[in-house]
Amino acid sequence: MTSSPTIAGVRALGFDVFGTVVDWRGSIAREVNQLATRKGVTVDGNAFALAWRAEYQPAMEPIRQGTRGFTKLDVLHHENLLATLEKSGLKGKLDTAEIDDLNRVWHRLDPWPDCILGLRRLHHKYPLVTISNGNVSLMVHLARHSGLPWDTILGAEPTQAYKPSPQAYLGTAEYLSLKPEELMLVAAHNADLGAARKLGLRTAFVPRPTEYEENGTKDQRAEEDWDVIAESMEDLASKLGC
Amino acid sequence: MTSSPTIAGVRALGFDVFGTVVDWRGSIAREVNQLATRKGVTVDGNAFALAWRAEYQPAMEPIRQGTRGFTKLDVLHHENLLATLEKSGLKGKLDTAEIDDLNRVWHRLDPWPDCILGLRRLHHKYPLVTISNGNVSLMVHLARHSGLPWDTILGAEPTQAYKPSPQAYLGTAEYLSLKPEELMLVAAHNADLGAARKLGLRTAFVPRPTEYEENGTKDQRAEEDWDVIAESMEDLASKLGC
Repeated sequence: MTSSPTIAGVRALGFDVFGTVVDWRGSIAREVNQLATRKGVTVDGNAFALAWRAEYQPAMEPIRQGTRGFTKLDVLHHENLLATLEKSGLKGKLDTAEIDDLNRVWHRLDPWPDCILGLRRLHHKYPLVTISNGNVSLMVHLARHSGLPWDTILGAEPTQAYKPSPQAYLGTAEYLSLKPEELMLVAAHNADLGAARKLGLRTAFVPRPTEYEENGTKDQRAEEDWDVIAESMEDLASKLGC
Repeated sequence: MTSSPTIAGVRALGFDVFGTVVDWRGSIAREVNQLATRKGVTVDGNAFALAWRAEYQPAMEPIRQGTRGFTKLDVLHHENLLATLEKSGLKGKLDTAEIDDLNRVWHRLDPWPDCILGLRRLHHKYPLVTISNGNVSLMVHLARHSGLPWDTILGAEPTQAYKPSPQAYLGTAEYLSLKPEELMLVAAHNADLGAARKLGLRTAFVPRPTEYEENGTKDQRAEEDWDVIAESMEDLASKLGC
């Protein structure tokens, strides 16, 4: 596969992170369940994670539309957390410091099991960057939490644009001094890859079928002929000759 | 020293790179001498490096003053290289690809001998970022050249400001979601540290007495009572309890 001209021209890999590299649902569910136990209340951590994440896309929309100035994802997460807590068994149980700490669960999400080895193999051959909606400090902490070998953090905050706004992808390529076709987006989400492909980026799909539920229905398989379709981050490394 | 409140509040280290982490003069002199030998001409690589670097500060000045839009350092280096070549024994000897390759010597400068071990020690405790005037792709390539363990590249290009413009320092702290006093600049240059201190950053001096010449006169020692004054990057690690 590395002999195809499409792949041979790739000079860097850019990664979607939430869902593609780290398991936000499982990580948040575990922390919320532990917190609920400490507080002596009953909360379904899995449902809490899904409810919190459900506020994610709507919160970015005014920024994409230009009716709200660029705001770090940490701030949006905090606003969404307050709304999610109101509807949960943890309502009124957490003080400000505890809420701030829970908000930082996004800084310590665990990676899928194939990621560390797969990313290290890829890193030998390619510069690896993030093309995530997570802000820089969130991404730095997340990388340090489990040793994700990013060469630098790009995506939303440095480009001041939330995916799928074109500038999030094109601005990342520009920071890397690359043409769009020299940058490959690696993602578990067909829509993200579709937005990148329209702008000329190369595309690699790594499925995460349990991202939203144990027997998921969304993004179970590649819905277009992405440039690489891999089974895991290690399989992607093999398919890219790493 | 780590028990002082000033140092205890530091949450990340930001590094000047050219001169502080990498030996630009020695690296460029070696490459230019090799190139001159291949071309059969006589060039003083050391003098060439100094002449090229002498164009560095003047080239950024119109951007600091706002009379030229932000322009990547790779582009400024290229303009400065053309001017330097004109006055050298290599005039007319290099084709476009050879000039482009020589310009990329800045992407493969060698670190001072104490840096890799010192930075790795520091990296266990602190997030490490660049606060350099080098552009992102230059810094990514430079880090990959010798394994510099940056958590992310910040400084000039992500803040669209060349040091010592305040935004280069303050914008870096903002990307890290830190207050200025939670960020420490590590630099071999008293003027750089002075600009950072005025804005509230913490400061660490690591001398590089041979940066400009074997028996240098500039920045030989700390000219203010910087928060840390170290002998080397390894000594800095020790002084910060790493």
